[in-house]
Amino acid sequence: MVFVIKIGGNVLDDAIALQDFLRDFALIPGPKILVHGGGKIATRLGDQLGIQSNYVDGRRITDDATIDLVTMVYGGLVNKQLVAQLQSINCNAIGITGADGNLLPAIKRPVKTIDYGWVGDVQADSLPLDRWKVLLDNGFVPVLAPLTHDGAGHMLNTNADTMAATIAIALSASYRVRLIYCFEKKGILENVEDEGSVIRFINPELYVQLKAEQKLFAGILPKLDNAFDAINKGVQEVLIGHAADLVRNTGSDTSGTLISG
Amino acid sequence: MVFVIKIGGNVLDDAIALQDFLRDFALIPGPKILVHGGGKIATRLGDQLGIQSNYVDGRRITDDATIDLVTMVYGGLVNKQLVAQLQSINCNAIGITGADGNLLPAIKRPVKTIDYGWVGDVQADSLPLDRWKVLLDNGFVPVLAPLTHDGAGHMLNTNADTMAATIAIALSASYRVRLIYCFEKKGILENVEDEGSVIRFINPELYVQLKAEQKLFAGILPKLDNAFDAINKGVQEVLIGHAADLVRNTGSDTSGTLISG
Repeated sequence: MVFVIKIGGNVLDDAIALQDFLRDFALIPGPKILVHGGGKIATRLGDQLGIQSNYVDGRRITDDATIDLVTMVYGGLVNKQLVAQLQSINCNAIGITGADGNLLPAIKRPVKTIDYGWVGDVQADSLPLDRWKVLLDNGFVPVLAPLTHDGAGHMLNTNADTMAATIAIALSASYRVRLIYCFEKKGILENVEDEGSVIRFINPELYVQLKAEQKLFAGILPKLDNAFDAINKGVQEVLIGHAADLVRNTGSDTSGTLISG
Repeated sequence: MVFVIKIGGNVLDDAIALQDFLRDFALIPGPKILVHGGGKIATRLGDQLGIQSNYVDGRRITDDATIDLVTMVYGGLVNKQLVAQLQSINCNAIGITGADGNLLPAIKRPVKTIDYGWVGDVQADSLPLDRWKVLLDNGFVPVLAPLTHDGAGHMLNTNADTMAATIAIALSASYRVRLIYCFEKKGILENVEDEGSVIRFINPELYVQLKAEQKLFAGILPKLDNAFDAINKGVQEVLIGHAADLVRNTGSDTSGTLISG
């Protein structure tokens, strides 16, 4: 089993939660991959450097100054601090972006109504599985920053959830894969007010039913659509759960929401 | 033959020279490694962020703010821009630091008279040759930022010349290695005023003689001591030459100064 695990800013911005998470991640036996998001530090540094966030129709645009900022902060500071911390607890982390080894090819998002700037759409079909196997089969633990490149010399800001799903899909051709999305809830809740109402298992039939009954919090639908897309494309299991429950969620008696085909 | 090639700020800070250099680097057949220095951008960004350079007895100190700055700039921005540019010209670059894969173990420099702060001294004896072989023998081209880690979770600012020499020494146990230092002159000059006076070949006997005759520019002695240290520890050839002469300096009819045992 290969674990592809995604953490977001809520873990990165909390030093204690992050330390606990990394300790748990390091303990997972066998091949594993960590995909991390950004966190608040890019915004803070951007403010200090006078780099303003640009929005068009409510969508964030990645201009020249912003891609340099996130390449520094996500690809440099955040990524290398994670690597150094994992290495200190016997996890053989290697910090990369989609550009490194061209491990996650992407294209600059085509302009339709909005020009998003230096934003990458990953190209699942061109992912070099052989290179991933070299790293995983030789004990390297890839730690991915949310960045790719366009193949023409430019870095691209890229959604970490999508990167994790794309890697999981490609690896599922050679490995049994569990894709784990860590977020701030224990799982998909039947009642968003009640942390005890985790739906422990969802398959495509139940998903259709839950949506028809409008039982799901609207904000979680994109994550679930992402999860079922991964399942439909070959990933054996997707788990959505709390970062603090990582160890349990890598086993068979999971506490989060397990999604399968 | 493995080429371990080091470039400094003078190439990184000149967009045209850098593009030419990367084109030449990409053309070198077989296994190769690029080690890069910093360049002026860290100083510029440090000024913008109000991070002051600290000196004690004329030696630069790497404090908390500075190690974060260089981790961002060298490990993020500079490193990933080099990787993206190399990938765009069919060179399978993978951008790393000494922390990634623990590929270049280091210790925080012990405090004797000066506390240098977060500065790393590389530990040649602990370098994991098997991991380097995995990368090189599978077509990855490591591109190293001048950073290591202390094994306890901290990144360390590290001299790129020394990193290149240490990697070359370790690899020389398994490969024939040529270590190439690119700098702003065509080679070691007999007369520092005359670019045509390149000393084409130096061995230990000639080096002793040149030093005794005080024929060498004092500023070049540390680089030459570094070079002979590498030779004494197993590296087959060290070449000191101009970045623009890279292609010729990877062949047998070199234009720079070739140093061997």
